[in-house]
Amino acid sequence: MAPEVFARWAARTESTLERRLPASAGGPAEPARLHAAMRHATLGGGKRMRPLLVYAAGSALGADEPLLDAPAAAVELVHAYSLVHDDLPAMDDDALRRGRPTVHVAFDEATAILAGDALQTLAFSTLAEADAPAALRIDWVRTLAGASGVAGMCGGQALDIDATGHGRQEVPDRPVPADGRAGDLGLLERMHALKTGALIRAAVRMGALAAAADTPTLSRLDAFAAALGLAFQVRDDLLDIEASSQQLGKTAGKDVAQAKSTYPALLGVDGARARLEELAEEMRGTLAVLGDRANALAALGELAIRRSY
Amino acid sequence: MAPEVFARWAARTESTLERRLPASAGGPAEPARLHAAMRHATLGGGKRMRPLLVYAAGSALGADEPLLDAPAAAVELVHAYSLVHDDLPAMDDDALRRGRPTVHVAFDEATAILAGDALQTLAFSTLAEADAPAALRIDWVRTLAGASGVAGMCGGQALDIDATGHGRQEVPDRPVPADGRAGDLGLLERMHALKTGALIRAAVRMGALAAAADTPTLSRLDAFAAALGLAFQVRDDLLDIEASSQQLGKTAGKDVAQAKSTYPALLGVDGARARLEELAEEMRGTLAVLGDRANALAALGELAIRRSY
Repeated sequence: MAPEVFARWAARTESTLERRLPASAGGPAEPARLHAAMRHATLGGGKRMRPLLVYAAGSALGADEPLLDAPAAAVELVHAYSLVHDDLPAMDDDALRRGRPTVHVAFDEATAILAGDALQTLAFSTLAEADAPAALRIDWVRTLAGASGVAGMCGGQALDIDATGHGRQEVPDRPVPADGRAGDLGLLERMHALKTGALIRAAVRMGALAAAADTPTLSRLDAFAAALGLAFQVRDDLLDIEASSQQLGKTAGKDVAQAKSTYPALLGVDGARARLEELAEEMRGTLAVLGDRANALAALGELAIRRSY
Repeated sequence: MAPEVFARWAARTESTLERRLPASAGGPAEPARLHAAMRHATLGGGKRMRPLLVYAAGSALGADEPLLDAPAAAVELVHAYSLVHDDLPAMDDDALRRGRPTVHVAFDEATAILAGDALQTLAFSTLAEADAPAALRIDWVRTLAGASGVAGMCGGQALDIDATGHGRQEVPDRPVPADGRAGDLGLLERMHALKTGALIRAAVRMGALAAAADTPTLSRLDAFAAALGLAFQVRDDLLDIEASSQQLGKTAGKDVAQAKSTYPALLGVDGARARLEELAEEMRGTLAVLGDRANALAALGELAIRRSY
């Protein structure tokens, strides 16, 4: 664990986001409501796990911190936009996020849709305008776009909707296997690998790209990031059962109330905890060869597994 | 006018979009509903004005057509995503677009939100993965992101919502000037310059960048594109009054029904027509120095002014 370095990286992230978001000093003041909604969605909350992963992966391989500011902020902007849209009434219909009203509750639905759209765009302009070689900036854009779109995060959210029928007026196209757990677990892992895993992997990859990592190192870190993404989700499912809404800063117990497919539902609580330990072991294995340089990455892996909020 | 060249450029656009959209030959089949919604939103309709502007600007300055395929498709993907989101019930609440049901009507709201999101992402991955030098790809990403986000298209849509109160439960923050037309016209032009103008200017600029245009040429073409964007909007407002829904492929007479601020409402129908002629003159002036090479651009300018759908 390295709390000082995480605090420094989180502060760098806040500072970059503050500079990139509209209504910053010197920028235009209008349209004020959209600016306020974008800031509400992005600033002053969140674990900043994805930016921390960018810094941890880049620093492990020797990249300078300032070079990591743009990809760290960009991945958080994509994450923030996705939360704004996922919380909409037509999607998960959530009123609480990071302990505060969601954007469509604090503002209105039209503004929330636009704010999410503009945050996504801002992620790509942040990368395109970074102080970095053009080839690196393009690699970042390609990595972030690949992870965010239909073959990544958006695709995963669509699979989630297909599987749960949530946000849909009709029955799902895909029949749920009648007998069972195996089929459900495969679908669940595939869905999470896209919905949350792809962006976590992109964070680690963008950090490693900034350090000009070679292909074997990129692959090793990608295996780490894939395990971390899955662990994060298993822990999320357990927290939904164990924790209160106050601790989480979002509505607890929703999964059970919505009869959602989750790790505890499919494996039992003890089974889900055992799966977490397997993933922790996998993460340690992938990082071993990097030695002490990977301490911050390892600590983030542990955090994903042990976190209580 | 050059109908053959426009048909060829439109066909190149269709073909690039077909290749880039999911559920193309060889790509993954899932999530099928999201793929279908993205294709519904993008293929088989639309004037393709923005892609034609990319080809016309690039060709005027000597760029090879294949180099223009990626920016032409990317700007159309951004345009398509914006229509999907603008049509949502929380925004303009429109059921008809390009003569077909809008995405949230043909599918559902959650799928429409996600399809728009994924189309935006696809625009940026199309640029990032283009067969072009990294520096040019980054200039394209920067141009397109700058024109699409809070300082461009999304910002213009927010100004429109602020001005009309449309899609909003509350009264606008900005007081409408009590006396008048002048204030309203200034706001209207500022709103359109962002909402539709920014993307049209980006189309022309991306084409010119592919030809490595110098700064004076970029400025000249930008002035042309700004006039074209405004002319397009004035004509759009006139068509809303003159044409039927069948001709337009979208709901006609909505502006009047919603008491929207439009050029005919502010200037009268004759005043709006006079403004169109001024803009036509301005476009001719900006292109004069380019001579015959600008024939296709000039023809697109004329089309924007004369079009009946």
